[in-house]
Amino acid sequence: MSRRDMLRLAGIGVGGLLLGAGGVGGLLAAEAEAPSKAGAVSRDDLVPYYGQHQAGIATPPQDFIVFAAMDLTTSSLADVRELFQAWTEAAAAMAAGEMLGEKNTTLNVPPSDTGEAAGLTPSRTTITFGIGASFFDSRFGLASKRPQSFQDLPAFGGDELRPEWSGGDIGIQACANDLQIAFHAIRNLARIARGKAVLRWTQEGFQRTGGADPTGATPRNLLGFKDGTANPNTSDADLMKDVVWAQHADGAEWMTDGSYMVVRRIRMRVEVWDRSTLGDQEATFGRHRDSGAPLGGKREHDEVDLNKKDDKGNPVIPIDSHVALARGDGSIKILRRSYSYSSGMDTKTGQLDAGLLFVCYNRNLSKQFIPMQRRMGESDRLNEYIVHTGSAIFACFPGVSKGGYIGQTLF
Amino acid sequence: MSRRDMLRLAGIGVGGLLLGAGGVGGLLAAEAEAPSKAGAVSRDDLVPYYGQHQAGIATPPQDFIVFAAMDLTTSSLADVRELFQAWTEAAAAMAAGEMLGEKNTTLNVPPSDTGEAAGLTPSRTTITFGIGASFFDSRFGLASKRPQSFQDLPAFGGDELRPEWSGGDIGIQACANDLQIAFHAIRNLARIARGKAVLRWTQEGFQRTGGADPTGATPRNLLGFKDGTANPNTSDADLMKDVVWAQHADGAEWMTDGSYMVVRRIRMRVEVWDRSTLGDQEATFGRHRDSGAPLGGKREHDEVDLNKKDDKGNPVIPIDSHVALARGDGSIKILRRSYSYSSGMDTKTGQLDAGLLFVCYNRNLSKQFIPMQRRMGESDRLNEYIVHTGSAIFACFPGVSKGGYIGQTLF
Repeated sequence: MSRRDMLRLAGIGVGGLLLGAGGVGGLLAAEAEAPSKAGAVSRDDLVPYYGQHQAGIATPPQDFIVFAAMDLTTSSLADVRELFQAWTEAAAAMAAGEMLGEKNTTLNVPPSDTGEAAGLTPSRTTITFGIGASFFDSRFGLASKRPQSFQDLPAFGGDELRPEWSGGDIGIQACANDLQIAFHAIRNLARIARGKAVLRWTQEGFQRTGGADPTGATPRNLLGFKDGTANPNTSDADLMKDVVWAQHADGAEWMTDGSYMVVRRIRMRVEVWDRSTLGDQEATFGRHRDSGAPLGGKREHDEVDLNKKDDKGNPVIPIDSHVALARGDGSIKILRRSYSYSSGMDTKTGQLDAGLLFVCYNRNLSKQFIPMQRRMGESDRLNEYIVHTGSAIFACFPGVSKGGYIGQTLF
Repeated sequence: MSRRDMLRLAGIGVGGLLLGAGGVGGLLAAEAEAPSKAGAVSRDDLVPYYGQHQAGIATPPQDFIVFAAMDLTTSSLADVRELFQAWTEAAAAMAAGEMLGEKNTTLNVPPSDTGEAAGLTPSRTTITFGIGASFFDSRFGLASKRPQSFQDLPAFGGDELRPEWSGGDIGIQACANDLQIAFHAIRNLARIARGKAVLRWTQEGFQRTGGADPTGATPRNLLGFKDGTANPNTSDADLMKDVVWAQHADGAEWMTDGSYMVVRRIRMRVEVWDRSTLGDQEATFGRHRDSGAPLGGKREHDEVDLNKKDDKGNPVIPIDSHVALARGDGSIKILRRSYSYSSGMDTKTGQLDAGLLFVCYNRNLSKQFIPMQRRMGESDRLNEYIVHTGSAIFACFPGVSKGGYIGQTLF
């Protein structure tokens, strides 16, 4: 049976974007296990939890994220193991749209599920776990297992990092097409961790809701520009091995098929941006706002040609534009999975606290994210309009099959 | 032609919930004016902006809110008038899913629209304007126009109000089925106000996304209970006149067909709640968590019978439960239009800053919201688990027809 036939059998078009990290086998297996909640669960609605990779990385982005960083309050590795076992079970249930624990009608104990997602469809929920660089300090005796490339990030130009949005022993990315479901996931995982770990920081994020753009075009960020055009093709397995998935050859065997996540809370100075001219804005991004095409181009996916010159011999795409610096010589790629955020106002400045919760995955921080961000931190024109207020990195484990638990390759 | 025929003509079932505040005539008129954006605008997707009442009050709740309170920096009534004229025009365009201003391809001026909602459908956007009690101080010479019932709220039990989430000369409720669109609305209205008004506080909120519950059941709040069951029927015009819309007889002619909005930012102590038993939780609300039925009942919409006694002669629904106190003798009604919120963490306590952005509309604060909230503030069992951190009231003007502007009855 061909892949195409299997997809057809599963009721999904080949062009469908809903396979998730588990691939076809994982999907079919997960479907067989999925609850048949009164017919409410459509195949489109469920991202398989189990698979070679954790879901939520190569999975096409959902509409919402609630990100949480946690700190361990235990120094027992056995506790950590138990925590991840409980989390794995809970995350699998939530990805399937199930309530946590047994259905509870006993009045004299707290409910096993906080209930706000009761009756809702799975809504493409994914929950992705990683551990921070601080996890490899002396507490758990695992310092020798730290991957060589997994070091605290250096300071970058444009950083004004604040502790309340930085770091963490553990990072959890909960994504879903419903914000209430993503919130429910983080809240219940924090609840399960009681006595072993506490929340350090959280951040909600959104993209335009799927239904608001039936064409499925590239979403726009809060500066009004399309964001994510240049992302690598997640269905190209060789490219994903090259760009995203840690490999056996990389040295840290427990991370094979995992990926390194970077989270940056980037405030946009929207009030300043809104006073700048369209010409300045387009020169800053190196793209046309309306079409998303590189300057001088017509269509969003036109090639970014940094050698193109205008009549006077100047580059059509400024060399310090965002697209020019992000691209560089084209040799470095990362998988972006960012969300916009709006978190009320900064009471100090009276300006909106809104911007980008930048999330990316890559195979090797030292060779990918760090050199790219260094280049941009130094000279990106966009730096006039943004400030990095939070930062964290996490080593996201490989996926598990049913019966296993996230982190078992390390713990 | 009967109302049913008109509805049929408009392609909307009689059971449809999407009429919005403008009613059938308003809908048909607005449809005729609506942009035909490449066929992407469905009738379901647009709430008419013009009408007897402002949209966003009796309109069935959308999935998201961005609420903003603003303070005027001008003391010229002419400036205020100009501001509301510009806002009315902008709000009508945004409700129709249009970009603001002329399509701008001029490079040497700032764009007339910030762009992040470009290409998105209207997504049931409503934008509702009101003025705070502070508007009637000495600045604009309108103190004599202040409606008698429109006074600063008294202090209530359970209040721990903070200035950063309270008050405002102007309140704007932007709702849509897409959070990016609601954000876009507030951001652009603030931009248009530059030099005349500044943001004082903002708060984002959400409900479960429409698609996450195809059955359209009553949404649950972040304590896991259904919220909004007892709301008055917005299609009962007489009831709405009684409960929501200010009337000629109420004395402030400029508010006739308007309504008074109360906004309360209510933090839920979710960590404490999650440790309480199901029995405690149900006794606190006076409802069963699973079904939403009043205690002792079977179905969500079963009558709340406060006289029902158990075998021992105790009330089945505790007299200090939330439902008992909200209901009282049943004589006071308000129209609730609340959203859940999740705003990261309270860095002081390390707990989630999540809860309810309570929004309600009523015809007379002194006769409706104030006595109801006083009763609840004094003895509601729920007070152990919630704290009111923000509060504001706004007199929301009547609606306008095309060519008019919001506020013209007063300014």
